[in-house]
Amino acid sequence: MAVGEASFPAMPVIEGLRLGTARAGIKQPSHRDLVVIEIPDGARVAGTFTRNAFCAAPVIVAKEHLAICSVRGQGPRYLVINTGNANAGTGEIGLRDARATCAELARLAGTHAEAVLPFSTGVIGEPLPMERLLAGLPAALQGLDDGPVGWHEAGEGILTTDTRPKGASVIVPLGDDSVTINGIAKGSGMIKPDMATMLAFVATDAAVEQSLLDALLRETVDRTFNCITVDSDTSTNDACMLIATGRGAEVASEEAVRGFRDGLQRVMTELAQAIIRDAEGATKFVTLQVEGAVSRREALDVAFTVAHSPLVKTALYASDANWGRILAAIGRAPVEAFDVSRVIIDLGEVRLVEAGGRAPGYTEEAGSAVMGREEICIRIDLGRGGQAATVWTSDLSHDYVSINADYRS
Amino acid sequence: MAVGEASFPAMPVIEGLRLGTARAGIKQPSHRDLVVIEIPDGARVAGTFTRNAFCAAPVIVAKEHLAICSVRGQGPRYLVINTGNANAGTGEIGLRDARATCAELARLAGTHAEAVLPFSTGVIGEPLPMERLLAGLPAALQGLDDGPVGWHEAGEGILTTDTRPKGASVIVPLGDDSVTINGIAKGSGMIKPDMATMLAFVATDAAVEQSLLDALLRETVDRTFNCITVDSDTSTNDACMLIATGRGAEVASEEAVRGFRDGLQRVMTELAQAIIRDAEGATKFVTLQVEGAVSRREALDVAFTVAHSPLVKTALYASDANWGRILAAIGRAPVEAFDVSRVIIDLGEVRLVEAGGRAPGYTEEAGSAVMGREEICIRIDLGRGGQAATVWTSDLSHDYVSINADYRS
Repeated sequence: MAVGEASFPAMPVIEGLRLGTARAGIKQPSHRDLVVIEIPDGARVAGTFTRNAFCAAPVIVAKEHLAICSVRGQGPRYLVINTGNANAGTGEIGLRDARATCAELARLAGTHAEAVLPFSTGVIGEPLPMERLLAGLPAALQGLDDGPVGWHEAGEGILTTDTRPKGASVIVPLGDDSVTINGIAKGSGMIKPDMATMLAFVATDAAVEQSLLDALLRETVDRTFNCITVDSDTSTNDACMLIATGRGAEVASEEAVRGFRDGLQRVMTELAQAIIRDAEGATKFVTLQVEGAVSRREALDVAFTVAHSPLVKTALYASDANWGRILAAIGRAPVEAFDVSRVIIDLGEVRLVEAGGRAPGYTEEAGSAVMGREEICIRIDLGRGGQAATVWTSDLSHDYVSINADYRS
Repeated sequence: MAVGEASFPAMPVIEGLRLGTARAGIKQPSHRDLVVIEIPDGARVAGTFTRNAFCAAPVIVAKEHLAICSVRGQGPRYLVINTGNANAGTGEIGLRDARATCAELARLAGTHAEAVLPFSTGVIGEPLPMERLLAGLPAALQGLDDGPVGWHEAGEGILTTDTRPKGASVIVPLGDDSVTINGIAKGSGMIKPDMATMLAFVATDAAVEQSLLDALLRETVDRTFNCITVDSDTSTNDACMLIATGRGAEVASEEAVRGFRDGLQRVMTELAQAIIRDAEGATKFVTLQVEGAVSRREALDVAFTVAHSPLVKTALYASDANWGRILAAIGRAPVEAFDVSRVIIDLGEVRLVEAGGRAPGYTEEAGSAVMGREEICIRIDLGRGGQAATVWTSDLSHDYVSINADYRS
């Protein structure tokens, strides 16, 4: 199940950046499950990774290799991504396998193993099927393509329980020039990113200083991928990579940074929202806007408490305007000296709650009309301050239980 | 659905304490939905209440009346409990209705309104049907009974989505004498108590000083009702009351306090576990033992993170020994400087994880054999210190979604 229609955009070429895929038989024989992204020489790469203490072997190796590239002053040249197996909870064997994958790709492509960053997604706790994975690498390299087909097939090659590939692209005008930002992402369950979501790859032809690139990625991830949740479960394999080839216009002036930041925010918001629209079992796409908070942290705490409440999520699934459950969830959020009589809750254009109780003009009919929609906005004003935050989430359906109870994922 | 068989014990008489019920038509016509508990003169009463900022009107009034009783030096004489309507999120009207209920019961019973404590449970956000509620009070008073029938019917009269009444009783020997502790509780969903669970009433004939009674209740609630979770949703109406009539043996010596504390712990553990066994949609009763923590808080944080993980809960429902999901949940718990290579996870008698990966001798067959059981113990050793905590929880089933999506509760 998924919310709304989704089409994969025809991605413009980012010169020098190519993507190739293979069917290595790691996931199912008919699926693309191996992706190689070739990065041109001179590009800069920023990355954010899961904060889960049990982070997967490829996350450890990718961070190590990125640090080595930084010391050497030469950016990474290849990303290699497999789906079907997360190489997580695999101890020493997992580290050895991730390093061996990088070494083999480096040998085939004529570069150093440390110039390759590995990423994996899929089932936790099984060793990587190394023979099949390594055997798939030549095909992925031979298929390297810089056009829309390369991007689309790579978008498909990183999926797990997702029902559709997720891509987004913008062209940002910079004075007389312009830069392109393309991105792909995957994720459908085990989604409550903390630093990044389960695999997103964004690339641009812009020329951006490394420290600025790092800062922009961190800032944008915090307002996009870190603001979505399906089920409160942070993955062991989360990673978001931002590649700037530097072959296009320079992003340095204040105005250029502003334009680039906006473009990046648009691409990453679209990818983050695409993950929620395709969340496991989702029938609703829900925007939680919390306003009037003392701090952004407080606004996020309230938004996530509501977004994680199984009772709110099942009411959303049932299209039941059960504002009592929303109110109960807000009430248990970690907010100091909370005066509940100032809270206002709007469901779409309908006022649900004010002064700690049902709003005077509220009718079940009006509430049900909004709850019946596929896209629902819940606005919560805490009446305490001037800070706000927005979080996107999905509902909790029978299909979520089926997907996670019937299959090993 | 519910886990295992459950029988309601034949409760011994606690002299002077009587319970009466009525079918007032608040829930469904055929259900007992109104309960009055009469407390003898001279008894001491301790209470803990929800910490949800949106606490219900009866919680506010019960706390006020308990404080007034304390100032006057006269304990409360009546508890009045209705199910079918929580009188929560009802603003000023809710407070007026809760006070009017106390006033009417006081008038009928010849006492002060402040000597009556009100409790409500059921749907949030609807006004109490006052006419029917008040009309039911005389029948509840006429039916007051101090025997097993009174306790059993009161146990039934406080239920909401529960499938069965929950009672526990122990007799604690104190030297040549003994005291009785009886308790009833309700709760099945919206269960993640914070100070107390959704309505538990425990009574004893013991003579216990007020400050000791307060301390024993707080301490025991923290290790029983505050250690269960169905769905992480803290109710707006949680309350746990402990009544000591003082007509039996005195609990004052160190030995007597120890014996009484153990008895209280047994009764309240049994009631807390009964709530989990009857959790909405539950097919599994799960004990999470976290050991080797730096602090009890840390052990509780890890235990609750695992207990709230929808992916762990659906794996439990599926009887799937998906240790990767347990490991991923532990990894996102708020633990400082977490060395995951020291973590050990046992599933019943089977070692699942050690050194950050699957235990060498582990087989899927052995794991599945344990996961197939109705009662499952997951032991997690963090290898960091000497503190521990135990939390009880249930699985996440199709029926949980049905119960909370198909019906307004």
